[in-house]
Amino acid sequence: MALLVQKFGGTSVGNIDKIKAVAKKIKQFRQQDNNIVVVVSAMTGETNRLIEMAETMQKRPTPRELDVLLSTGEQTTIALLAMALNEIDCSAISFTGHQVKIETDNSHNKARITDIDAEKITAQIDQGKVVIVAGFQGADQDGNITTLGRGGSDTTAVAIAAALKADECQIYTDVDGVYTTDPRIEPAAKRLNEITFEEMLEMASLGSKVLQIRSVEFAGKYNVPLRVLSTFVDGPGTLITLEESEMEAPVVSGIAFSKDEAKITVLGVPDTPGIAYKIIGPVSEKNIEVDMIIQNMSKDDYADFTFTVHRNDYDKAMEIVKETAERLGAREIYGDTKIVKISLVGVGMRSHAGVASKMFETFSKEGINIQMISTSEIKISVVVQEKYLELGVRTLHSAFKLDK
Amino acid sequence: MALLVQKFGGTSVGNIDKIKAVAKKIKQFRQQDNNIVVVVSAMTGETNRLIEMAETMQKRPTPRELDVLLSTGEQTTIALLAMALNEIDCSAISFTGHQVKIETDNSHNKARITDIDAEKITAQIDQGKVVIVAGFQGADQDGNITTLGRGGSDTTAVAIAAALKADECQIYTDVDGVYTTDPRIEPAAKRLNEITFEEMLEMASLGSKVLQIRSVEFAGKYNVPLRVLSTFVDGPGTLITLEESEMEAPVVSGIAFSKDEAKITVLGVPDTPGIAYKIIGPVSEKNIEVDMIIQNMSKDDYADFTFTVHRNDYDKAMEIVKETAERLGAREIYGDTKIVKISLVGVGMRSHAGVASKMFETFSKEGINIQMISTSEIKISVVVQEKYLELGVRTLHSAFKLDK
Repeated sequence: MALLVQKFGGTSVGNIDKIKAVAKKIKQFRQQDNNIVVVVSAMTGETNRLIEMAETMQKRPTPRELDVLLSTGEQTTIALLAMALNEIDCSAISFTGHQVKIETDNSHNKARITDIDAEKITAQIDQGKVVIVAGFQGADQDGNITTLGRGGSDTTAVAIAAALKADECQIYTDVDGVYTTDPRIEPAAKRLNEITFEEMLEMASLGSKVLQIRSVEFAGKYNVPLRVLSTFVDGPGTLITLEESEMEAPVVSGIAFSKDEAKITVLGVPDTPGIAYKIIGPVSEKNIEVDMIIQNMSKDDYADFTFTVHRNDYDKAMEIVKETAERLGAREIYGDTKIVKISLVGVGMRSHAGVASKMFETFSKEGINIQMISTSEIKISVVVQEKYLELGVRTLHSAFKLDK
Repeated sequence: MALLVQKFGGTSVGNIDKIKAVAKKIKQFRQQDNNIVVVVSAMTGETNRLIEMAETMQKRPTPRELDVLLSTGEQTTIALLAMALNEIDCSAISFTGHQVKIETDNSHNKARITDIDAEKITAQIDQGKVVIVAGFQGADQDGNITTLGRGGSDTTAVAIAAALKADECQIYTDVDGVYTTDPRIEPAAKRLNEITFEEMLEMASLGSKVLQIRSVEFAGKYNVPLRVLSTFVDGPGTLITLEESEMEAPVVSGIAFSKDEAKITVLGVPDTPGIAYKIIGPVSEKNIEVDMIIQNMSKDDYADFTFTVHRNDYDKAMEIVKETAERLGAREIYGDTKIVKISLVGVGMRSHAGVASKMFETFSKEGINIQMISTSEIKISVVVQEKYLELGVRTLHSAFKLDK
């Protein structure tokens, strides 16, 4: 008898009928002799509705009180799902985060799970019940309600799976697995049967928004087998594993991309120690996230410096950098919002130096100019002009035989 | 510095603007150097909306899960009210029933409070905060969420006031106090400055639906000074006290009435021991509440038997009684749904035999025929034809000088 933790997100439980459909699905798994713990999010749109209400009440809602309010979203879903399961004779019981002692730190609105008491859940499983737990929420040591921030339900599911030593943590979503790249860009994209945690982390952070990054990190850390599946279409989904299990692992697993990038280049700053900090520091102080950072020596002890930010932050970042650059006596500042980042991801490439050169060769053949390059152990990212996004992704997809 | 427990019902916190208005009101009391604990209900209509949702999910919603769902209603209000108070610089903190350990038995949907741990509330008051507690809800010994049933927020407020030994428990509602009778029937009706718990119990159970009966009982038992006031109009309201404080208490405090009555009469049943039980037993077994019961000897050892039920239960009760009466060999059954009950309420009448005769005399002068009479220590109720309701109430109101 397997123990499964199944997580259903907001779109999967978006209305009464969808909740009933999820209940049927759970009952099927139960009838196949599985013990099941279900983690659910708030119904689609509910969290936004509550936030709007809070903001009409208080310009910047007190974080603690916002959590009291937001946590009602999942509490509604767990009760309704339990009723739907009981109605079809699949005995179920619901718990809030507080009730099953999902203990977090006290960072309201973005709390982190510190402990879970599995006892209460186990006791109900032993009584043959499907246990439904509210995702996204917990309580701090003083019993204050906390929430984990957007996407936190994934983390709840993984944390419960870890605490219960579940056989698998299944994340149900509206896609049927992780693909070699976005099928909307490359129709030949294929579903991966397996992907490693590290690859998944790179894919997720690059815009394949299937899973919340924190939950993948968490699953990797506690060695929880994680599977991404579709709520609406039956299928095996994609298993996220600690190590590639196939002997001859393909070098490249997938192609990720990000369309929301913008770059800022500062040319000819005096190359003194701490120059990078002087430029990036003021930007990150304003809570702007900086992604790629590249520094090149130019001539005569002057450095050229380029970094990328989210396109929404471009204007703000540019304003800050202009001020800094003037003070530092930079020669020129240059910005571009019409760029994209394309990345090859794959554990296999660690030991295959040829991957990078093949990538560059492929782009060169198509006349795609590479503006920036950045590499990590399992990823090579390049920045190119926006117009090359589709061409770049498709060319790489075929060059690395991901459609085979 | 006084400690006040203030309860605001669903209509008082019915929307965003009303919650903001309540916040302003609370701030005023706070500025007058009071410590304040606020108990709130769900916003008007919210509880009904949740029940409807539950019923589309499950024909007869699992009581435990219904409580998980319903409790989100007050949880939403406490968070919003806390935000509204913080926004106007009146420091506030919210708690669910569970969080301040409002312990109840495990009768879901109609739980009874067994204990309250005042410590958490007191700690926050000591820090100068307005403490907001969700009404209507608690948790049983195992931490399951429970609700107290309709009107339960009044009980929560009184229970907290008792636990904290508050100086006063103030119930804010849409009327500005308890009246000598319903002003819609008798425009000369006057607000009472004070009324005793016992009188209030009789008034409440007879349809002056200002307070939930249980909360009045509770307040009387724990000697909590209770005051009914209007959320929307300033004024002293009505204080509900243990003993009439005025030396020369008026004999009659008010006139209550009930328009939802129906009566059933069984004529000529053999007067054997247990006959009352044989007739009433089957009715109450079907959960039909029986109000007045009157039995008279008729001639030749046959008894006449009359009782009243809620008009909604009339058909069902009649059906049951017909069956019983046939078995018992009753001579005749007679029913009437066009009746009302009018009651004189007043602690003073205990020692004033003249009240009853004055009441009968008043009715007799107006040609109002009395069909049934029933008396208690502090109440005289009569059943008359429906058409005499207004005339009866107004005549009594003036005869007992309640408008003076």
